Amino acid sequence: MIPVVGCCDVGGSTLRVALVTRDGAVLEKKTSSHSHPAPDAVIDAMARNLKEMAREKNVELLAVGAAVPGPLDPWRGVVHFSPNLQWREFPFMDALSAQLGVRVVMDDDANCAAWGEHAFGVGQNTRDFLYVIVGTGIGAGLILDGKLYRGARGLAGELGHTTIVPDGPLCACGNRGCVEALAAGPALARRMRALDANVSDTLSARDVIAMARDGNRNAFQVMEEAGKYLGIALANALNLLNPEMIALGGGVALDAEELLMEPARAEMQKRAFVYSAEYVKIAYGVLGDDAGLLGAARLAWETMEEKT
Amino acid sequence: MIPVVGCCDVGGSTLRVALVTRDGAVLEKKTSSHSHPAPDAVIDAMARNLKEMAREKNVELLAVGAAVPGPLDPWRGVVHFSPNLQWREFPFMDALSAQLGVRVVMDDDANCAAWGEHAFGVGQNTRDFLYVIVGTGIGAGLILDGKLYRGARGLAGELGHTTIVPDGPLCACGNRGCVEALAAGPALARRMRALDANVSDTLSARDVIAMARDGNRNAFQVMEEAGKYLGIALANALNLLNPEMIALGGGVALDAEELLMEPARAEMQKRAFVYSAEYVKIAYGVLGDDAGLLGAARLAWETMEEKT
Repeated sequence: MIPVVGCCDVGGSTLRVALVTRDGAVLEKKTSSHSHPAPDAVIDAMARNLKEMAREKNVELLAVGAAVPGPLDPWRGVVHFSPNLQWREFPFMDALSAQLGVRVVMDDDANCAAWGEHAFGVGQNTRDFLYVIVGTGIGAGLILDGKLYRGARGLAGELGHTTIVPDGPLCACGNRGCVEALAAGPALARRMRALDANVSDTLSARDVIAMARDGNRNAFQVMEEAGKYLGIALANALNLLNPEMIALGGGVALDAEELLMEPARAEMQKRAFVYSAEYVKIAYGVLGDDAGLLGAARLAWETMEEKT
Repeated sequence: MIPVVGCCDVGGSTLRVALVTRDGAVLEKKTSSHSHPAPDAVIDAMARNLKEMAREKNVELLAVGAAVPGPLDPWRGVVHFSPNLQWREFPFMDALSAQLGVRVVMDDDANCAAWGEHAFGVGQNTRDFLYVIVGTGIGAGLILDGKLYRGARGLAGELGHTTIVPDGPLCACGNRGCVEALAAGPALARRMRALDANVSDTLSARDVIAMARDGNRNAFQVMEEAGKYLGIALANALNLLNPEMIALGGGVALDAEELLMEPARAEMQKRAFVYSAEYVKIAYGVLGDDAGLLGAARLAWETMEEKT
């Protein structure tokens, strides 16, 4: 029997589970969709899917790792509050462990994705690695001195909620001028609508990126402005943490690619210390949607290895 | 014979050397002043002072730790460039080691001070600890997961050069809107002169702080503005790193105390995530000018322990 762990990635609208070997091979994967589900329903669905997959593949789950939206406490396994899922102080780890009868470990989605890219993706063989997700929001996972850095309460990595324009637009977190409010998907759409009254009210970041690629000057300007703001946040992270590599992931970053990253890189190089800026490699994540799953699997494998 | 290491702290205008035991006791200390000295003259003076002190105290130096202005490469022991001292690519570690015949280790002054406060001062028993120096400039040392975090090239901790106002005042580093250009000593004096044409051209940050304490409203406003900017930088560090404690040091912070830190704390609490902000302890360093020396001594002791 091949030794495998189970892993899951709880998104705002999808639930993904997989069986993963020690070297990161995905033996089986299943994606289902949900909408604002109660936490117990998610736990049930995950446990059912994982058990089913294990039976089909005739393997035994050694442990389970989960990537869950934060903020959360990774040691106690409690989700403090999830705006997308409307969960509050939910003891995720205990609930899932009770259903599966194996050890469950978890961390927030950005940390898992960073850990995944570090173990099996673009960040392999780096020691100080930042993985920055630009999508509906902006989040980051920090690998420092070769280890996932969680902070004192497991809340590190909130690069999206660093202020770069003190009186800037209101952010979903309640603060003003967070880089997330200036460079994530909703900000792109909002800025485009402000520049051009003729565009649809339902315009998405994906639309703005497509328009910019087609030569629309307003859309191009939107991408350039957002890129500059992102570049300021990256320069700040660079000066504070001096990483070896910063990898970008998330729907907006991977869709826009250089439309966003060319101005971001230019701004970053202009603002960061030359010794840090010359040294850092800027890259894109290579695991796509699997980054979080694979990082969660890695967490589960580490737990097994600590025990033996 | 008591086992001791030597340590030194190279400042812009002073040179400090000491003999320190494993538990951080200062056996002997000597301070001398210098002005824009050539690197070789500094090395000579340090070596001479350390040898003299060791002879007087009848001890043998096991190793030497040095706190040196950065940016520098702590592994190769080379100072890249020191604006205050006008050093460029100077192989400090080899030069000092050649004169003393013992192993020399070094790091930049902020890292050493953070390591000192963590080992022997206010940061004892913390795991994730930020030490922020507000003086002529703003710098920080990061203790993450209980270890000094240096970054890929030893350049981490440049909190002073994180941008918080994209079009803000020009900073000494060439960038605009760094928190150092908004909240360090020279910024306080500059802002005070802008608000009040009657103050002296040679007004110092110390003068502004004294005036604010005496009830001068402009000076009070200057401190409040600077505190808010510092608070934004601290909120950013809090959201990115989720430390257990942030301790403040440096001439301006220790002189101004709550004149600066009350508005800083308020702004930080307003902007940072509540889970991180409620948890973090804000404190002042307790080792004063000795923080860097004691951190350098700790580096030297660690080197000894690695060898045995």
